[in-house]
Amino acid sequence: MLHEVSLVRRTYFSAGHKYESPVLSKDENIATFGACYSEYGHGHNYILEAEVSGLLDQKTGMVMNLRDLDIILKKITTPLDHHFLNTDVEFFKTHVPTTENVAIYCFNELNELLPQGTTLRRVRVYESDDLWAEVVN
Amino acid sequence: MLHEVSLVRRTYFSAGHKYESPVLSKDENIATFGACYSEYGHGHNYILEAEVSGLLDQKTGMVMNLRDLDIILKKITTPLDHHFLNTDVEFFKTHVPTTENVAIYCFNELNELLPQGTTLRRVRVYESDDLWAEVVN
Amino acid sequence: MLHEVSLVRRTYFSAGHKYESPVLSKDENIATFGACYSEYGHGHNYILEAEVSGLLDQKTGMVMNLRDLDIILKKITTPLDHHFLNTDVEFFKTHVPTTENVAIYCFNELNELLPQGTTLRRVRVYESDDLWAEVVN
Amino acid sequence: MLHEVSLVRRTYFSAGHKYESPVLSKDENIATFGACYSEYGHGHNYILEAEVSGLLDQKTGMVMNLRDLDIILKKITTPLDHHFLNTDVEFFKTHVPTTENVAIYCFNELNELLPQGTTLRRVRVYESDDLWAEVVN
Amino acid sequence: MLHEVSLVRRTYFSAGHKYESPVLSKDENIATFGACYSEYGHGHNYILEAEVSGLLDQKTGMVMNLRDLDIILKKITTPLDHHFLNTDVEFFKTHVPTTENVAIYCFNELNELLPQGTTLRRVRVYESDDLWAEVVN
Amino acid sequence: MLHEVSLVRRTYFSAGHKYESPVLSKDENIATFGACYSEYGHGHNYILEAEVSGLLDQKTGMVMNLRDLDIILKKITTPLDHHFLNTDVEFFKTHVPTTENVAIYCFNELNELLPQGTTLRRVRVYESDDLWAEVVN
Repeated sequence: MLHEVSLVRRTYFSAGHKYESPVLSKDENIATFGACYSEYGHGHNYILEAEVSGLLDQKTGMVMNLRDLDIILKKITTPLDHHFLNTDVEFFKTHVPTTENVAIYCFNELNELLPQGTTLRRVRVYESDDLWAEVVN
Repeated sequence: MLHEVSLVRRTYFSAGHKYESPVLSKDENIATFGACYSEYGHGHNYILEAEVSGLLDQKTGMVMNLRDLDIILKKITTPLDHHFLNTDVEFFKTHVPTTENVAIYCFNELNELLPQGTTLRRVRVYESDDLWAEVVN
Repeated sequence: MLHEVSLVRRTYFSAGHKYESPVLSKDENIATFGACYSEYGHGHNYILEAEVSGLLDQKTGMVMNLRDLDIILKKITTPLDHHFLNTDVEFFKTHVPTTENVAIYCFNELNELLPQGTTLRRVRVYESDDLWAEVVN
Repeated sequence: MLHEVSLVRRTYFSAGHKYESPVLSKDENIATFGACYSEYGHGHNYILEAEVSGLLDQKTGMVMNLRDLDIILKKITTPLDHHFLNTDVEFFKTHVPTTENVAIYCFNELNELLPQGTTLRRVRVYESDDLWAEVVN
Repeated sequence: MLHEVSLVRRTYFSAGHKYESPVLSKDENIATFGACYSEYGHGHNYILEAEVSGLLDQKTGMVMNLRDLDIILKKITTPLDHHFLNTDVEFFKTHVPTTENVAIYCFNELNELLPQGTTLRRVRVYESDDLWAEVVN
Repeated sequence: MLHEVSLVRRTYFSAGHKYESPVLSKDENIATFGACYSEYGHGHNYILEAEVSGLLDQKTGMVMNLRDLDIILKKITTPLDHHFLNTDVEFFKTHVPTTENVAIYCFNELNELLPQGTTLRRVRVYESDDLWAEVVN
């Protein structure tokens, strides 16, 4: 009965952004991104969902201590929460802050910080209830 | 059995904003608004909820035609959706775009547009699942 | 500290319907109801929300026994659940089954069945997450 | 355009409880409360919703500072969160911790702590998505 | 850092249906489907969730343009929305419109329409918050 | 067009628990589990999500009869619902009732009861909207 189990945690952050590719002209940006492109941008309530798997610690019954996971997730979301992604986060100066790229960014950041013995199975970033991106390991 | 009934409709828009009062200094703004103040702002998925009441049209069984209500609500949300409130909407150049003020703005706009025989009972604006403002008529 | 308190209970039912007024011609029905009118109808997952208020029973700490309320609500929803409203429920043979009329129907049915000492404050019927009707006592 | 506006804030706590009236015998408790009575109790994820109204501060656009409201709400939920209500909270030693009584308790606690110029319009306590109690001022 | 990413989009439609197998007798239909079988049917608010994966376009940061995906999804849901599945959609004249079959139908329709370079990873169809079917590629 | 399809069903139960490992001292329990450890415990509204896959029965269009699945799920949740896990369920006398262990327990119980021709693909147990555990087959 040695199951591998996943623990999934949701956290929240609110950020501003605009869809504007530095390698496209203004007209190309408008043609590609429509309403998502605009001079001062707009914003969303994002959800970050992290799935961490591993064998259970038989003494504690946990994949990893939830308080440790929460501390790690806080490290990821603090530079994003209540910020404007295009201007305030280095990665998004060269990558359009689409939901897909926000998910890749969070996946890579998280993957660095998880403790040994655990695996980052999957990261989901929701831009709204009806749109999200997922990176699977 | 002549009931007054309310019809409530939810619509959605995503907007950027920052909490910055033009009559406060930068330090006072930071002291008052904390993380909600920042140079480039952040953003949210807003929900606008409008409650319209009246007597039922006995032939149609409706307080008002839902398609008309949807057209009116679209008129309200179009200038807000995918925009940055502080810069793109006249009202928010002189009013901090708090949830409270967004609700007052939507209430006043809606109140102008509803057809005779209906009453705007209440407007709610959600900034997140955990925070909203309400104006009652 | 004798508070009046409200207890609110949600229940669910799935029903079919079509918007078709018996006093309108086919063309008038289409003009009035658009996609909500069609020959065989469509359907929804409805939510019925009942708010019952009264003084707390000091011994039990309850406005009314929840199991009694659930039995009453079941009596209301059973003739609706998994039925086609226009054909299967007497009231909707002469009233278009709009969200407003479904709310009025549920309010009247419930009002008959609640025990003495309680008041039916309000009934809400949701046709979707984004549309509902409310009858206030 | 001096609107009174309400600000509503949701907070969360998880608590254990059992429905057991000290003035009823064991058999009467079982007859009254059914599955909600049991020796070791069970528990819920509760939601506390507080509606605070007042005139807007014209400088800040706020009914009251949200950070102050959050501090007050934290004072209310800390003694409840991750506790067993019947044993760990004085009030529930003499009041059955029904949803109704939890709402009354939260209403009274909150009412003491709100700043001048604001009114506690309403408190809601959810025991589940389908059951809640409301105290209106 | 060439990640494969999934983009997931939710859309909504409301439809009527009844569970009635053409190869079963009326009694067998009732025995098999219970309340889901009835002469005039009932209905639901369905959710269609489509997961599309591919490599990111480095210029736009997107798996595929969301507006194109929305147009494709609209093509799928238009013949279903506000219709009665058993009578109005060819496929459901020979397949019982269970959640499973609605998911298979949507998967096959979608799979035809996605652009080159993308893969339809998975389709989910929700009949309610508590019941859904999933087809994985 | 012989698709393997999954059917997913959600059910709900409310239970009390405390995080207390029998092989740890009281101080170690507090250090490990923080607020989740306390003498009388607390509780949650749990969600159990079961994903069952198989080939469709061509006559009924179902992976398995939903009413049978509901009966099986009820057998799993009845001993948990409105109980205190640590004291009332044998398995949790020797396993800390973390979300992970509740998921493993439900997976093993369910796996025994499903009919031939179906596979238990996955079990999820939610302790809250923001935390869940998953066991994949």
